[in-house]
Formats: sequence, structure tokens, C-alpha cells
Amino acid sequence: MILKESERIDDLEYKGLKIIQDRNGFCFGIDSVLLSDFAKNMKKKSVVMDIGTGTGIIGLLLCKKTNLKKIYGIEIQKEVAEMAERSIKLNNLEDRFSILNVNINDVTKYFVNNQIDVVVTNPPYKKNNTGLKNTSESKLISRHEVKCTLEDIIKKSYIILKDLGQFFMVHRAERLVDIMFLLRNNKLEPKEIRFVHSKQNEKPNLVLIKAVKNAKEFLKIDKPLIIYNDNGTYTDEILKIYGKIRD
Amino acid sequence: MILKESERIDDLEYKGLKIIQDRNGFCFGIDSVLLSDFAKNMKKKSVVMDIGTGTGIIGLLLCKKTNLKKIYGIEIQKEVAEMAERSIKLNNLEDRFSILNVNINDVTKYFVNNQIDVVVTNPPYKKNNTGLKNTSESKLISRHEVKCTLEDIIKKSYIILKDLGQFFMVHRAERLVDIMFLLRNNKLEPKEIRFVHSKQNEKPNLVLIKAVKNAKEFLKIDKPLIIYNDNGTYTDEILKIYGKIRD
Repeated sequence: MILKESERIDDLEYKGLKIIQDRNGFCFGIDSVLLSDFAKNMKKKSVVMDIGTGTGIIGLLLCKKTNLKKIYGIEIQKEVAEMAERSIKLNNLEDRFSILNVNINDVTKYFVNNQIDVVVTNPPYKKNNTGLKNTSESKLISRHEVKCTLEDIIKKSYIILKDLGQFFMVHRAERLVDIMFLLRNNKLEPKEIRFVHSKQNEKPNLVLIKAVKNAKEFLKIDKPLIIYNDNGTYTDEILKIYGKIRD
Repeated sequence: MILKESERIDDLEYKGLKIIQDRNGFCFGIDSVLLSDFAKNMKKKSVVMDIGTGTGIIGLLLCKKTNLKKIYGIEIQKEVAEMAERSIKLNNLEDRFSILNVNINDVTKYFVNNQIDVVVTNPPYKKNNTGLKNTSESKLISRHEVKCTLEDIIKKSYIILKDLGQFFMVHRAERLVDIMFLLRNNKLEPKEIRFVHSKQNEKPNLVLIKAVKNAKEFLKIDKPLIIYNDNGTYTDEILKIYGKIRD
């Protein structure tokens, strides 16, 4: 396995998985780990698309947490896509996990409509032209809606998903109105949401969402997911998700 | 003060307020108390409309918690409206609080457009034709969208509110998608929400929402509002809202 100078191999400490990351680039965060866990009860033998796959973290974890048939990782950044491909090889997952270095807005050129069982996505959180931008172009694309908006992702997901196909997303809680509005407006009906709080009694930072294409209107809200105990250690639920203690 | 046989006077134990309730009818719940508190930082000297005023609980509390200029309570049920009027007299609030016994869908006949500063509403929570219905017609109207839907309330609120007028609502958390979608779709932009949980680590039951007519898109999510401690007693925050302990 050839590593570039700024890259390193990290042990995910989960079922032997390893991942290549670039220390100058966008490294995966707890949001991707939480999304993989939230999506793990997807339909069996699913064909999955990960939109904005980045390092490949979500796909790698889903290959171990589910019995998915195939996952396609869509990643617009060429160097990031190639790094994810090397991580897939490193874990011998080439049969189940493929990377496509394309823009989500072109995805309908490569896939037949209504064919995908499940979409997972940890999209850029910030609207373009908002907030402090990262100087690195790669981090900018990962964090801001430079190359595609939330609406692009939702509209393309609707097209490629099967009827009643599942859509799993993690996003910033502050984008809740945009998320709910755009999902319903595009017939991906939100069916389950879970807010993620850094600590109990603090506002939620993230939201995990499951939506279903053309589903009936009915929302289930889960109990909060708390990351840290008051003393700063991880909660038992987070330790379980990271595979550090047995279920 | 004349009471009907099934009525009683309850002491709100808050700044001397008393309220008449019908023990066979719909009695106010903690949701109305929480909404009054959530709305208490409304603009000064506001002209307020309470849509679906019921016993008048929200208006009575707002007369004591704010310096509102005037509040109009819209109540479709004649007997309930009359009972609320008697509660207003009982508290000597006739100068500031008036009841209109009309359907919200007719409200634009009685008010000039773009004239109200603040709308507050604790609407029926359940869609019509869903869930177990109450046998009492009065309770049915209070709980189910028989006489008006959430969309009716939002559309009429938009019409009567001033530009940048405030809209405060309490609703079931499970209706979150409907709420977010309908508010944004009708240009009452959700600006602040707070989830209400019966206990910590349980799913939220209620949601408090502040929306603003024609406002920019940006949502603030508050920390959770917890009603009960683990031992079943009220939390300090609830005791403060009920006025049992000093701020």
C-alpha cells in the first residue's frame, strides 16, 4: 500500500477496519460514525449509495455493520476518491464497495432511475457564502455547499431511489427547517429523527434523519443521543457504537 | 360570578389568577402554561391574538407575564368562549383581554390584515380521522382538527400578522415535519424551537416554536425543557414557570 507523505493509516478499532486519511485534508468525525450506526438497520442485501463519501468511512463501517450487497461512494474530489479506493483495497472490500469520482448532479448519467435501495449521506453542512471558510479547497468542498446543495442531494436521491427506498442523513440541527421542508417537498418523507447532544441539557448539535421515498406522513422521534457524560467521558451508548463495549 | 353546575374555579397560584373550567370539558394542560412562558419575551406593548383560546389560560397568563396592550382570544365553541369571558371578568382583565366567538377561518372578516403583532396558539394536535376520538364533541373540537387544520391557522396568521410579526405555537413533537413544512411554505419562518421532554433521556413529547413573518432563514434550537426529575418531582425550571420558586 503506497501512502502519500501527508497520509496516515488509522485503525478504526472496529472489526479490523483501517482507513487512510490525509492529515492536511478533511478527516472523518463522529457524525459519520453515528450515521453508520443509525443506518445499520437498513433493508437486507441493499444496494447503497453514499453521497459525498470522502475518506470512505461510512461505507467501510456499513460493510461491517450490515449485510449490504453493494455500496457506491460518490466523491467529487479526485484525490479524496483515490484515497478512499486505497482504503477499500486495504480492507479487501473491493467486491462490495466502489468509488465513483463524479459530481452528484451527474449521478443520473451513471445509474438507472429507481434502482437504489438506500442512500446515506453526510453532506457539507454549511450554506455557501456563510460562516468562516476553510482556506484549503478540499476542506471547503467537504464543509460548504460549493459543489452541491442539500436540495441537489435530495432531488437526485429521489430519482435514483426505488419506491419506498430509504434515505439516511446526518446534518447540523440548525438546518432542521431546510431539511424537513426540502425532504417533504421532494417526496422523501421524514420517518424518524434523532437529535445528537454533546451533553445532556445542552442544545442538540446534530440530527440523524431517516426518510422514505413516497412514504405516508408519520414521524417517529427518538430519545436524544448524548455523546459525553457530565464528567467528559463517552456515554455507554457512544462506547457501544464505537465497538468498545459489548452490546 | 355565576358558575354552571359542572364548572369550578381553579386558583392558578400565579399572581392571583383564577380560571373557570368545566370538569366535563377540556381543561388546560401544562402545554398552555409552557407556551405562555415561551412567548413571554414578545415585543413590548403587543397586540396579540390567541387562536383557539379555550378556557383562556394562555391569555390570562400572558396578561400577567407581559405588558401586552391587548389580546384577542378566538374560540369557535360558544359555551367555551362564554366561560373564558367569565374568567376574564373574574380577574378584572376586560380592558386587555377580549374573546371573539368565531371560526379562525372567518378571522379576516373581523381584523384588518397586517395589524397583529403576535399570534399565540395551542391548536388541536391530532389530524382529523386519526387516533381515538373523544366522545364529547367539545373535547373533540379541542383535540382534533375538526373545525380548522394547522394549515388554516398558519395561513390566517400570516394574513393578520404585521411584517416581522411573531408566531408562537406549542404542538406535538411528532407533527414536526408538518409544522416546519407549513410554516416555511407560508412564509412564517421558524426562528426558534424548544423540545419538551417528560424526562431526561426520553423522546420529546411537545415542541415550542417561534416563527417570524417574512424573516430570514435561521433557526436557533434551545436546550431541552425537561418536566420531571428522575424521581417524578417537577424540575426547577418547571417550578419557576409555575411561579413556585423565585427566579
